[in-house]
Amino acid sequence: MTIAQRLHELEISTDGAGFSRLNEPLNHWIARTDITQGVLHLTCLHTSCSLTINENADPRVLKDLAAWMNAMVPQDGAGPTGPDGKRRRYLHDDEGDDDMPAHIRTALTTQTMSLSVDNGRLLLGTWQAVYLWEHRSSPHHRRLACHLIGDMADPPSDQSQLLASGKNTTAKLLARRNGQRLNDVVQARHVPGAWAEDGGIETDVDLLIDRLHEISDQQ
Amino acid sequence: MTIAQRLHELEISTDGAGFSRLNEPLNHWIARTDITQGVLHLTCLHTSCSLTINENADPRVLKDLAAWMNAMVPQDGAGPTGPDGKRRRYLHDDEGDDDMPAHIRTALTTQTMSLSVDNGRLLLGTWQAVYLWEHRSSPHHRRLACHLIGDMADPPSDQSQLLASGKNTTAKLLARRNGQRLNDVVQARHVPGAWAEDGGIETDVDLLIDRLHEISDQQ
Amino acid sequence: MTIAQRLHELEISTDGAGFSRLNEPLNHWIARTDITQGVLHLTCLHTSCSLTINENADPRVLKDLAAWMNAMVPQDGAGPTGPDGKRRRYLHDDEGDDDMPAHIRTALTTQTMSLSVDNGRLLLGTWQAVYLWEHRSSPHHRRLACHLIGDMADPPSDQSQLLASGKNTTAKLLARRNGQRLNDVVQARHVPGAWAEDGGIETDVDLLIDRLHEISDQQ
Repeated sequence: MTIAQRLHELEISTDGAGFSRLNEPLNHWIARTDITQGVLHLTCLHTSCSLTINENADPRVLKDLAAWMNAMVPQDGAGPTGPDGKRRRYLHDDEGDDDMPAHIRTALTTQTMSLSVDNGRLLLGTWQAVYLWEHRSSPHHRRLACHLIGDMADPPSDQSQLLASGKNTTAKLLARRNGQRLNDVVQARHVPGAWAEDGGIETDVDLLIDRLHEISDQQ
Repeated sequence: MTIAQRLHELEISTDGAGFSRLNEPLNHWIARTDITQGVLHLTCLHTSCSLTINENADPRVLKDLAAWMNAMVPQDGAGPTGPDGKRRRYLHDDEGDDDMPAHIRTALTTQTMSLSVDNGRLLLGTWQAVYLWEHRSSPHHRRLACHLIGDMADPPSDQSQLLASGKNTTAKLLARRNGQRLNDVVQARHVPGAWAEDGGIETDVDLLIDRLHEISDQQ
Repeated sequence: MTIAQRLHELEISTDGAGFSRLNEPLNHWIARTDITQGVLHLTCLHTSCSLTINENADPRVLKDLAAWMNAMVPQDGAGPTGPDGKRRRYLHDDEGDDDMPAHIRTALTTQTMSLSVDNGRLLLGTWQAVYLWEHRSSPHHRRLACHLIGDMADPPSDQSQLLASGKNTTAKLLARRNGQRLNDVVQARHVPGAWAEDGGIETDVDLLIDRLHEISDQQ
């Protein structure tokens, strides 16, 4: 067993403020290396966009997260509004009103993240996705350093032993059999904008997500 | 010297919103591996609980931290209250009022953390503990990926050389001799709810903690 | 190719609340090891100061970031002000009014960070600096665990291949040729307090920074 390292630069084009899902490009690059188990270290090489992990199913989670951030780190300055209804303006304002809030939002999330890799893929929870969070208003080209340290061999890990142990609780079955595939199916049928168009009426997919959350919560 | 890796899944049962101290279960697992020096990478495999490091002595620190979070990421929605005294409600509300705040609180802390391991134990500061922070209201079973990369041998590190160098400042003595054991003694005598029951009267343990903080601050 | 690890304790003296740039002491220590490519894991061994990455050029960014933090995690307690104009005071107040906010501010940023090292130096973006953020009001001696895992050899990485590939876009040239040296020149000419003294009048250096930001944004 020999530990090795691979260093790569991933480029992501963003469409302005919002979330770019990284699971697929990261797994694609990992698959192209010869390392099947290890740790992937990500560094977002910027100061106005960041990395975050959050829900991969209901897109309203990301909308609410962005709304909270917009409210707490507003564009017109820091702190409470004064008697004139205005805040203390940012000193650093020469790159546009969206720049200083982007620096603060970056500091509140993270620019570095270390993720386990097992069986040649990111080891994530059922509901987790890794996102590049663009905090600037306009589209940008962003660079991520991807640094994978691990092993080319594939020895049975504690986790795969656990999964192979016959202790088949619902949770284990959910983790083993359905995980990524189930998410893919749900994602494929999920229409991100549907909640806005149908006034929040729950679709079959919504109900399926609810049911899975219930099973997950009962673990 | 051969670097190796070990991957393990740790399960933590939470009692609802609050902090579960991880130092002991993590050190227990590290001791069961054959790796004595390296880096432990933790991934919290969920999107509504997170990892954090904070004070291990006075439990009021965690109470204040939770109170701040409750105030800044409230359950009834994001942003300031409007003229009707209400906030803009979260869009994602079908898993209970505590779910969307849990996603935001998770994003503000972290789901991945890399910690140094030396002499077969986590290398932490005197006052640090690692916590799983449960953000949901009800009890949950939570899973942590624990990924340790390091070496089975135990060469003298810079730190142990420093400690062995004879430069015995108060700080060094405090770090070397008393660290964990001192904390254990203090923890054992500390009654978390006492401050509420005795109206904040300082006990001998409170005074001891104060004294240790003073020594620590003088370093 | 043999992976090895080096563990070191870095001491930083802070002047009270503010930012201490770590790039130079970290690169200096890395250069003293025999590892040229790998990952540097930092742990801030305290609970009232933290690590953060942010802009290295315009010091007003750090001033605005600190002002936001002061406003959102105030010293007089958590949550909105009540009818009497006061907040709910912190329970943990026996180490001074600045201590509990320092714990919260630490939780909102991070105490652990993993950074790529390539060609014997930290692999950072053009505008990034790593800072120790002191949250206490008075000067402190702070300790950082620096744990470098990597390789003594220097094989061509994907990135250096990319830089050597002849695909010389402005961004690549900027990254390869000017990066650190350009920053050093800018930093040397930049007077941090100038904006306060000259009422915000833009100097040649300000204009140079603007121009570089524009080039960077066009990537």
